[in-house]
Amino acid sequence: MEDKILLAHGSGGKLSHDLIVELLSPLANPILNRMDDCAVFEMGGRLAFTTDSFVVKPIFFPGGDIGKLAVCGTVNDLAMSGAVPKYLSLALIIEEGLSFAELKNIIQSICTSASEAGVRIVTGDTKVVNQGQADKLFINTAGVGSVPEGVDISAANARPGDKIILSGNIGDHGIAVLSQREGLRFESPVRSDCAPLNGLVSEMLAVSKNIRCLRDPTRGGLATTLNDFALQSKVGVRIAETSIPVAKAVAAACELLGFDPLHIANEGKLVAVAAPQDADKILAKMKQHKYGKDALVIGEVVKEHPGRVVMQTRFGSSRIIDMPVGELLPRIC
Amino acid sequence: MEDKILLAHGSGGKLSHDLIVELLSPLANPILNRMDDCAVFEMGGRLAFTTDSFVVKPIFFPGGDIGKLAVCGTVNDLAMSGAVPKYLSLALIIEEGLSFAELKNIIQSICTSASEAGVRIVTGDTKVVNQGQADKLFINTAGVGSVPEGVDISAANARPGDKIILSGNIGDHGIAVLSQREGLRFESPVRSDCAPLNGLVSEMLAVSKNIRCLRDPTRGGLATTLNDFALQSKVGVRIAETSIPVAKAVAAACELLGFDPLHIANEGKLVAVAAPQDADKILAKMKQHKYGKDALVIGEVVKEHPGRVVMQTRFGSSRIIDMPVGELLPRIC
Repeated sequence: MEDKILLAHGSGGKLSHDLIVELLSPLANPILNRMDDCAVFEMGGRLAFTTDSFVVKPIFFPGGDIGKLAVCGTVNDLAMSGAVPKYLSLALIIEEGLSFAELKNIIQSICTSASEAGVRIVTGDTKVVNQGQADKLFINTAGVGSVPEGVDISAANARPGDKIILSGNIGDHGIAVLSQREGLRFESPVRSDCAPLNGLVSEMLAVSKNIRCLRDPTRGGLATTLNDFALQSKVGVRIAETSIPVAKAVAAACELLGFDPLHIANEGKLVAVAAPQDADKILAKMKQHKYGKDALVIGEVVKEHPGRVVMQTRFGSSRIIDMPVGELLPRIC
Repeated sequence: MEDKILLAHGSGGKLSHDLIVELLSPLANPILNRMDDCAVFEMGGRLAFTTDSFVVKPIFFPGGDIGKLAVCGTVNDLAMSGAVPKYLSLALIIEEGLSFAELKNIIQSICTSASEAGVRIVTGDTKVVNQGQADKLFINTAGVGSVPEGVDISAANARPGDKIILSGNIGDHGIAVLSQREGLRFESPVRSDCAPLNGLVSEMLAVSKNIRCLRDPTRGGLATTLNDFALQSKVGVRIAETSIPVAKAVAAACELLGFDPLHIANEGKLVAVAAPQDADKILAKMKQHKYGKDALVIGEVVKEHPGRVVMQTRFGSSRIIDMPVGELLPRIC
């Protein structure tokens, strides 16, 4: 096998065949092994279906790589609908010249993350484009999961009085990728929080089905997620700045660079809107989980100012939190 | 709205939101309109799941564009497992600077093709990368379909004695894209055959469930598809050169450029391996369909030379047909 990816690896011919057989062997499972153009499996009930493309630059960063991100991102999108993620597709767009060793590392990372999340890669696709016509590697994953009975989660379901729970500190992923890309050094290095959250969600749903909204605040950060809830549910959202946890290094980086941590992407955090009577027990359960141990209530849903997110600042005043308007941090996922 | 795509359209913030609302409005349906990160729908039984990324260059070509291709490609992969395609995801990787008008045309084309195929786009994703880090537009579609009772189609199911049916002439798609890209002019212009084949397949399955293998010979062409059948079913495949239809302009282009039409991609053709007793009625049914009217038997499955495809040439000799080894035609899908 060559040590770099060639255009011919995307030809659909012999080299494609060899690449797939060699490269994808760590992902082997009975459905994928059929090597038909489709995966076929038994499934029923309410299904969740989602897709995400990943164009993160650089493809390796502290705390993860594009492969881990591609699995966790899609697993998390499924989990945020309350679904149990089951099957993933994996589509690679490779720039000619990518080293085979890097690609193997990424596939290994996909394998590890899929195994942690309990999902299987069952179908895939590989394309190779000429040097200079893509940037190393883009990955798309789509996913299928099964939504349990009694679960009804949507950004449109928040009601006044509901509590807003955040699973931990924000901004780690965006700052980790940015600092790797730009060669910034902080006293304590920032690592991406990239993680599969389906285990945490299933624990939460085990103690209460009264979870109305659930989302992982990725691109656009916590600000965008809360605005989506406010807009789609036609309610107001009120949060307290002092309750929002930001790691010291992330806060320092944001201050230095003029970013608002509320706008920075996360890849291993979730925001839940929960019925007030169940918020405490959901929170208690989250704190027992490794990806929810720092969970806390950051605010509540209100009747006032529908469609708007208002934050009580540390100085006691209030300010409206908007979605970011421009592009602060391109290619962080 | 700007007339070109900006990085900020991929930010996950306000401009992303506006882009999605404006751009995707032709695709509106109740599942997509929920605007959650997942589509949720009821479905059950044996499901088929597939994915494909499309990196075709140029993004517009005679007979289609990257949008039509992205719908037909995934619809066809589902149909080739015998499934009824139902739901598609749509993920765009856009190069900064792509014109909004071009993107709108492509979305319109996705809409038209999805409507012809009877599928709905239910979930999606949009990423924007800096100018020079992708080539205009890459699209990924994944799809979910439902496999009817009694259907068992796989490249591993061919048996000696089975007939090999081809739905029409080969090589149109690859030559159409190549000639557009390289500015080649032929007396009669070659148009891509890009089309959704699920209607044809469901007519075929209505007359016989004894269809063993089914595949659309895309990248790597008919040669690769037949080799896949031979390898995976551990049988020999024998075809007759004189029976394989190639349009005059495609044959001329192949001769000029030194290509074998058997290696050229198709996007609206299928190859079926059918039980001998049912081949005639399947063929008769295909001929009544607009995408199968030129269907014919091109060969049969044999016990001899397992794993190999052998063609009887027009001169009466035999030659082994291999998968293409290098990359003849990069980025034709």
